[in-house]
Amino acid sequence: MQHSLTVPIIGYHHSPLSQKFGIPRQPNLVDISSYIKMVAPYDTPDAFVGIADFSHLWVTWQTHHNQPQTGFKPQVRPPRLGGNKKLGVFATRSTYRPAQLGLSVVRLLEVENRAGKVILHIQGADMVDGTPIVDIKPYVAYSDAIMDAVSGFAPQAPKIKAVEMTATMQQQFDAMTSTTTNQNSLSKADVDTICQLIAQDPRPAYLQHEVGQMFVMRYKNIDIGFKMEEDGVLWLVEAKEVN
Amino acid sequence: MQHSLTVPIIGYHHSPLSQKFGIPRQPNLVDISSYIKMVAPYDTPDAFVGIADFSHLWVTWQTHHNQPQTGFKPQVRPPRLGGNKKLGVFATRSTYRPAQLGLSVVRLLEVENRAGKVILHIQGADMVDGTPIVDIKPYVAYSDAIMDAVSGFAPQAPKIKAVEMTATMQQQFDAMTSTTTNQNSLSKADVDTICQLIAQDPRPAYLQHEVGQMFVMRYKNIDIGFKMEEDGVLWLVEAKEVN
Repeated sequence: MQHSLTVPIIGYHHSPLSQKFGIPRQPNLVDISSYIKMVAPYDTPDAFVGIADFSHLWVTWQTHHNQPQTGFKPQVRPPRLGGNKKLGVFATRSTYRPAQLGLSVVRLLEVENRAGKVILHIQGADMVDGTPIVDIKPYVAYSDAIMDAVSGFAPQAPKIKAVEMTATMQQQFDAMTSTTTNQNSLSKADVDTICQLIAQDPRPAYLQHEVGQMFVMRYKNIDIGFKMEEDGVLWLVEAKEVN
Repeated sequence: MQHSLTVPIIGYHHSPLSQKFGIPRQPNLVDISSYIKMVAPYDTPDAFVGIADFSHLWVTWQTHHNQPQTGFKPQVRPPRLGGNKKLGVFATRSTYRPAQLGLSVVRLLEVENRAGKVILHIQGADMVDGTPIVDIKPYVAYSDAIMDAVSGFAPQAPKIKAVEMTATMQQQFDAMTSTTTNQNSLSKADVDTICQLIAQDPRPAYLQHEVGQMFVMRYKNIDIGFKMEEDGVLWLVEAKEVN
């Protein structure tokens, strides 16, 4: 009897988030724009005829930051539960699972035909830059949207926190959004996305009560420093370009 | 650069439908009960702690009735469109796709611990008996249920047809549901499921206007003969046990 299955990589995800820190914990929480660049032979426009009539797609991807499991680990500690309660891996969306497969619903923004090769522009992905893609299917509302589904330990979207930026930070962002000469310049949409990402509070659960400790989220080539102050607000305090 | 990914088979689907004919065209259309029997080491109850708090699961499975593609075929003819219009494979849920991966949302009925091995009892699957399972994840309503999603050529569930049974058929079912000695005896729930399956009209699209032609759907070890009459009703006409 066959014990495994081989699936081809059909494309790669390109995102402003090159590190796991800051990646939304589920799809559909943050309006972050990104794209999937298909690889040959899967990049032919023929393979996408009709897809633009769907608003959302299912993306199946490889959790490539995790090594394939050598021994099966049946339990994980979901960040959602503070990282100190164990659950069965199949009761979670943890990326540490037997199949290195992630599953994300994303909004389809545009199907670009770039010199005969397809690029899918999407919104809401919870995948890091460089993620290998193994399948793309349309979201079919009549079978996939189950409004009365009961969702165990994750009954609703995680609470978002208030985000503010210091005057210094605001000036740094203004400088970055006013230049168009730098290929890594930010748009106002980027700044909005950064604020949405930080509002999700990417800090580890066990540090979420920590006041004054600096954390850094990389967005494109910019390291965004932020910390929670006594007021419970996540303050964006500095932005540094990196190479 | 890596071009493929290997995923383990973690269980097998067990269903009264051992043939593709009759399988619902999407999950969630028919209240058919079935189960997934996990295989070692993935069958440990530890791996399922917390899963019973979710009403629905995502099942990722192997479309094992299709051979792996040797050359990439970018287009398919969805049955939904009558089988005569081509669409890009990534705009469809066709099982003829580069990754032999199917994706189905199912209702979780019960997590059975049978002598220390887990069996998941589910409802609504569109998978045939013997389907290899590669991943199970909880359905998370706040990210997965998108009520306003626009679903291209499949905006709503396929229309169901009226189903009736002849007096002879009714007698045959009565005989099968009244016996409990035969291990393949039918329950009243089975008969209801059979009627729901036929109401989906499993006949190929190009034959759906055919009057009087007999089709046979196998359910457990019973071949159910049905045909559409002039009245447009799908009439169940005979049931034969097979070995």
